[in-house]
Amino acid sequence: MANESLLDDLHRRWKKITLLESTAGLLGWDEQVCMPPAGQSWRSEQSALLAGLIHSELAKTGLGETLEKLEASPPADPFNRASVQEARRRQSRALKIPNQLVEELARVCSQAQPVWAHARAKSDFSQFLPFLEKIIHLKREEAAAVGWEGHPYNALLDEYEPGMDCAQLDALFDELQTPLTTLVAQSDDQKAIPTQPVGRFGIEAQKLLGEAAAKALGFRFDAGRLDTSTHPFCSGIAPGDCRITTRYQSEGFLESFFGVLHETGHGLYEQGLPEACRAEPWCQAASLGIHESQSRLWENMVGRTRSFWEYFLPIAKAMFGAELDDWSLERLTGCLHAPRRSFIRVEADETTYNLHIILRYRLEKSLLDGSLPAVELPQAWNHLFHELFGMKVPDDRHGCLQDIHWAGGGFGYFPTYTLGNLYAAQFMRAARKELGDLESDFRQGVFARLLSWLREKIHRVGRSKTAQDICHAATGSRLSSLPMLEHLRNLKA
Amino acid sequence: MANESLLDDLHRRWKKITLLESTAGLLGWDEQVCMPPAGQSWRSEQSALLAGLIHSELAKTGLGETLEKLEASPPADPFNRASVQEARRRQSRALKIPNQLVEELARVCSQAQPVWAHARAKSDFSQFLPFLEKIIHLKREEAAAVGWEGHPYNALLDEYEPGMDCAQLDALFDELQTPLTTLVAQSDDQKAIPTQPVGRFGIEAQKLLGEAAAKALGFRFDAGRLDTSTHPFCSGIAPGDCRITTRYQSEGFLESFFGVLHETGHGLYEQGLPEACRAEPWCQAASLGIHESQSRLWENMVGRTRSFWEYFLPIAKAMFGAELDDWSLERLTGCLHAPRRSFIRVEADETTYNLHIILRYRLEKSLLDGSLPAVELPQAWNHLFHELFGMKVPDDRHGCLQDIHWAGGGFGYFPTYTLGNLYAAQFMRAARKELGDLESDFRQGVFARLLSWLREKIHRVGRSKTAQDICHAATGSRLSSLPMLEHLRNLKA
Repeated sequence: MANESLLDDLHRRWKKITLLESTAGLLGWDEQVCMPPAGQSWRSEQSALLAGLIHSELAKTGLGETLEKLEASPPADPFNRASVQEARRRQSRALKIPNQLVEELARVCSQAQPVWAHARAKSDFSQFLPFLEKIIHLKREEAAAVGWEGHPYNALLDEYEPGMDCAQLDALFDELQTPLTTLVAQSDDQKAIPTQPVGRFGIEAQKLLGEAAAKALGFRFDAGRLDTSTHPFCSGIAPGDCRITTRYQSEGFLESFFGVLHETGHGLYEQGLPEACRAEPWCQAASLGIHESQSRLWENMVGRTRSFWEYFLPIAKAMFGAELDDWSLERLTGCLHAPRRSFIRVEADETTYNLHIILRYRLEKSLLDGSLPAVELPQAWNHLFHELFGMKVPDDRHGCLQDIHWAGGGFGYFPTYTLGNLYAAQFMRAARKELGDLESDFRQGVFARLLSWLREKIHRVGRSKTAQDICHAATGSRLSSLPMLEHLRNLKA
Repeated sequence: MANESLLDDLHRRWKKITLLESTAGLLGWDEQVCMPPAGQSWRSEQSALLAGLIHSELAKTGLGETLEKLEASPPADPFNRASVQEARRRQSRALKIPNQLVEELARVCSQAQPVWAHARAKSDFSQFLPFLEKIIHLKREEAAAVGWEGHPYNALLDEYEPGMDCAQLDALFDELQTPLTTLVAQSDDQKAIPTQPVGRFGIEAQKLLGEAAAKALGFRFDAGRLDTSTHPFCSGIAPGDCRITTRYQSEGFLESFFGVLHETGHGLYEQGLPEACRAEPWCQAASLGIHESQSRLWENMVGRTRSFWEYFLPIAKAMFGAELDDWSLERLTGCLHAPRRSFIRVEADETTYNLHIILRYRLEKSLLDGSLPAVELPQAWNHLFHELFGMKVPDDRHGCLQDIHWAGGGFGYFPTYTLGNLYAAQFMRAARKELGDLESDFRQGVFARLLSWLREKIHRVGRSKTAQDICHAATGSRLSSLPMLEHLRNLKA
């Protein structure tokens, strides 16, 4: 076969894989947003079947042969070259992980999620423990099957953040820990500042405000939608179909609003991947860290600025009426930054958030290598929490049961949140340097210049470069802890 | 292999097929209810892929071998015997229809639906014509592949209504046509009666009323949901997951309400199939005619009775306030029956509805055997419409473009609506005979006795018997046009 028809063969195979993946994506979205509770056990089996089908396609000998030939005479086009590499990475993982393990993980994780939700509601770790143990056992098997150097955690991390490993993470997190605990310790003088305007904020009005903001940022509603779910998330299901969610509380509008901004950031990345290429291996997010950088950038580096609220506060006031009468621009933006110790990650401010991640990273590493038995997790969590935050965890609902990730098998996922914060700060510094005054854009509700910059430097690149290379090309330097620490110190000032 | 392990093998294979079918079902539901418009073309490809995967599973040699052995020594259990028969029927169809044709049909029909919607909105048949021609061509290929006696239509009809054919349909429809046209002709004296209370009916209140009614009838919301779509439908996606939809107009509540009753009827059937067996071949609706009988029974034979409204009118009045002040029980129920000539099938009363079906049945037979070229459809429609209804069709939006079915490849589907009406009337007559006074149940909002009768005689039977046998066992006689004509004449009286 000539190179051209080999590429056609790769694209045809990948199209099928992408179609199956997008179907699995819809099953997952629907499970969180629409599915009635009695549909749970059947849905678990559907998800397991789809995971198995995807795995079989990836493991096919024909795919391996095509890749071998393409590797022997690599395509000239860099995107096609990246596709060959990515397809090889996926196939190699698939061949190493037995189909049975893939299906078992999908099934157990799908079953574990309602159990976790119930255990969290009751603050009863013992309900969740047998599932957690099973999941850790399976993830350890997965790491062993993939193979690793240094630490089994690296095998799992690599799936979310290709090129990253524990050695690099340990170094970054060690650099961060002391400055972060110092910033948080200094925060107690800001305890009196409220975290948000409290009142009665109609859900419909919150939804309209969120949609208006997502639209203003550039989210395409003809190719996406906004729904409600227990945990806000973004699912880039397919080309032309990207769905975001948030959650509402009637006593305040900021949780739903920042949820929308965050997920819109993810959504803009998904919608910015070149639609015509979406079935090609290179055409996806570079890594979860880069994905998270887009959500954090819009949520924190744009959505918490004074200039952003110069535009959006009048709109919010118009929508919510008297509830915001006493809220000046100064008073509102004053709420948005003050670090304060908190038990719950998803409610944390920008600064403490990263301490929450460092905690989880250390614990999941130990769970995985067996140095921490799952049964001791609550105790270990509470101990480390006290060390980092200086607070005593009241119960497991406010401790080790708060996050869905481990119930979903997402070991190795947490660090990508802080990587996202680091990338976001570094990207934003570069964008401001290159584009000059962004504040006057934001003040007018204009975000197109910033979005274009992100489209060019990040979105359109897809996975044709590694996360580190994208960072270097966009900002002129490797990922560093300095831009984020600088950003956080400026908030404090 | 012993019989037991052969059955296990059949069940294992069918489980996979059912999982794939339920996934295709979710893709279809989502397309109508949630999917953003830009996701259309990708969704078409997902649906085509799933159709192809299901087809491949059905066509597998291993399945054929298992069935052959089970046919050689049939299982003692009648449900298992029915499973073997149904699996054979499906495999035999799958082997006859090439995979490529299945995928092509799924793709073309998915593409055709938005084109049809646009053509209907513009009342421009020429936009839809090329797709219609393509679909007819493919359906003709399908009929040829399946094989037929008498008329190619039989090959398609058999998929929706196993055991039914044109000869039987022609006989039933010939019996119906004259009495129905007579009833409709007599209806002009009732022109002055309004079709519904007109006013301002909040969508939220309509939704609450619909949910209350569905719940009262027995629809399980922990295993189902109610949404909004352009065309009301019911999708029994999976065990524990049955979804119904309706559509709302703010100037009247009866369209959405009867939409809910109708789809609830379908939903009760799906929810009444034994959940633990849902992955076995026998455990599905016996036919579309029987399915439709359940929706028509609840919509028309229950939901349009005076006793039903004795219970529900006070609830509706409480929900809609002043808008129903002038509506007595007599005045409301007076609206619900009067036959009146109408152009639109889905807006038709119980009597004229069947004339709409007879029209479509005659036309689609001719389209399929080629005696009516697709380009001449509008002319032929309008001509036959005038003959049956005595009215001149103003435009194709009110004529041959009104229904989605042909755009979805549903040739052979329409007759099942009138079969449903016939079965419904015959079932209801038998239920009333057996259960005695149902009116006092309805008056109190109690529907459990009727539902139990339907569960026992119809729902739990699944496809373990043919539609005709279910009818005979439940009512003591074969399907006849008499109970429905009697029912319609009583309405008139």
